[in-house]
Amino acid sequence: MGKQTVFLNTPPSVIGRASVVGKKEGEGPLCVDFDYINEDSYFGMETWEKAEVAMQKQAFSLALNKAGIPPSKVEYVFAGDLLNQCIGSSFSMRDSTSGFFGLYGACSTMAESLSLAAMAIDGGFADITAAVTSSHFCSAERQFRFPLEYGGQRPPTAQWTVTGAGAVILCSGGAGPHITHITTGKIVDAGIKDSNNMGAAMAPAAYDTLKTHFEDTGFSPFDYDLIVTGDLGSVGHAVVLDFFRDDGIDLSAIYQDCGLMIFSQEQDVQAGASGCGCSAVVLTSHILKGIESGRWKKVLFAATGALMSPTSVQQGESILGICHAVSISS
Amino acid sequence: MGKQTVFLNTPPSVIGRASVVGKKEGEGPLCVDFDYINEDSYFGMETWEKAEVAMQKQAFSLALNKAGIPPSKVEYVFAGDLLNQCIGSSFSMRDSTSGFFGLYGACSTMAESLSLAAMAIDGGFADITAAVTSSHFCSAERQFRFPLEYGGQRPPTAQWTVTGAGAVILCSGGAGPHITHITTGKIVDAGIKDSNNMGAAMAPAAYDTLKTHFEDTGFSPFDYDLIVTGDLGSVGHAVVLDFFRDDGIDLSAIYQDCGLMIFSQEQDVQAGASGCGCSAVVLTSHILKGIESGRWKKVLFAATGALMSPTSVQQGESILGICHAVSISS
Repeated sequence: MGKQTVFLNTPPSVIGRASVVGKKEGEGPLCVDFDYINEDSYFGMETWEKAEVAMQKQAFSLALNKAGIPPSKVEYVFAGDLLNQCIGSSFSMRDSTSGFFGLYGACSTMAESLSLAAMAIDGGFADITAAVTSSHFCSAERQFRFPLEYGGQRPPTAQWTVTGAGAVILCSGGAGPHITHITTGKIVDAGIKDSNNMGAAMAPAAYDTLKTHFEDTGFSPFDYDLIVTGDLGSVGHAVVLDFFRDDGIDLSAIYQDCGLMIFSQEQDVQAGASGCGCSAVVLTSHILKGIESGRWKKVLFAATGALMSPTSVQQGESILGICHAVSISS
Repeated sequence: MGKQTVFLNTPPSVIGRASVVGKKEGEGPLCVDFDYINEDSYFGMETWEKAEVAMQKQAFSLALNKAGIPPSKVEYVFAGDLLNQCIGSSFSMRDSTSGFFGLYGACSTMAESLSLAAMAIDGGFADITAAVTSSHFCSAERQFRFPLEYGGQRPPTAQWTVTGAGAVILCSGGAGPHITHITTGKIVDAGIKDSNNMGAAMAPAAYDTLKTHFEDTGFSPFDYDLIVTGDLGSVGHAVVLDFFRDDGIDLSAIYQDCGLMIFSQEQDVQAGASGCGCSAVVLTSHILKGIESGRWKKVLFAATGALMSPTSVQQGESILGICHAVSISS
């Protein structure tokens, strides 16, 4: 293996998975795959941040139910979100008795948490671990852009932050789906400074990680039934297709993007969806369901993140991209 | 081992370490131990956030120099800081070719990053990894409290955010200091709501992790030459001593706190120091130097974090505590 990719000798299995989403996500094409759709953007709480916490707790709880284990059996939880100081994750785990590793990988967090949760098992440090990730349209909008009341216009390259939380419970051994390979991304600076064009900022990182994954493992892209990036949207998805086309590879038949799967074109989300919750809920609903049902045997899940903050953008910094890829087999 | 503690079969060695601090830290009692003291709070940059990035880059670079390896040899970097969306870490690694895992553990981040960096090696996933952490007084003050110009008064329980960055390079095998055991903390909610009293909020988490560590490993506290918490300051340090006294154990001869070590009483920092950089620079200067020189054979480094944000405090949430403990032997 190359230095960015690890092969898991005893691939951990997904023994529980759950996705909880908001109303708009529940009106999209993946509606039948989600575990729970909440029509109330407050999830019964007083604030959007507390709503995000409630949503993450619910996803974790539903995933534990499916795994048939109590929370006390989980040795380590790897969790992250988009909120300042990652309060979505820490407050959702405030009653947990598991060892807690807080992560920040922007919208790549589902793959980052899944990678570390799988490595903790394969490395012999635990038998059961969890990966949990969320984002909420309203808490993200007020932190990153404008008060919603401002009514600012969204350019066509902008993406729509998903309201959703995903949780995966992993176990050593088991019947699968199995986590077999992990390619950890490096930071890629493409020099993009427009925070309404995250897809273009993340696409070079996605290409870098996918290319590294194929080089390190010796796999051909066509060894996979599905290659799916996190939340590049239409702009970034097209850039990745172009990069591979320049290498003489046409990925169009097998390459999709979570940011283009969760909403329909009629839902008016400009270039597609984004947010940690985007790839988290698409993975924990549609993708893992598709592997379980035999629709896909081998999937490369490559969540992408834009590393930036309102402060870094104001200070003229470019938006850094990162992409972590996790190979999942039936 | 209990479920929160792992024993590393082939303990990784610290082959490089570095600490970079600001002027005030350089005037404190540990001044002779730091690798670099910068009198300029801007570190030659235009903003405090960019200063923090420059400081973290410098610590990483100095640690690599001491290890005698180029940055390209580092397979994974585990890094985090206090800034919103952890931009201190992502921007300091923008030119890195290593796999990047962004972390958020508040002031426990140095122990969290060291834990995962050591587990990545012991688990067989890498030969060389790095743990990097920073905080900057000015970037933290403007984010968490007030514009510095406001001149708000600080109550006696308040702590002073350290300007400093620490980096550790780990290698499989090697001559030591060795990382031998890791006890990962769980989130502890003591119900404290005063963000000027972080020490009291974190102390119960420190006690929980230390107690768990002794139970899981069978070690007595007195198997250690030094037990050092992250940044509890005088309030939290006294609480931890009291908790153990209630268990019939007097830790006073061997128990210290990084938040009480870095500044002298004359430096007017109320209850002591805090910030991710606090335990990061005390570890990478004074503590590791003391192990290398034979002053201490066995140290338990237990960095503490307060999981909260200005938003969570405004919304009436308590301040959650966490503590990760790493056992380091010569």
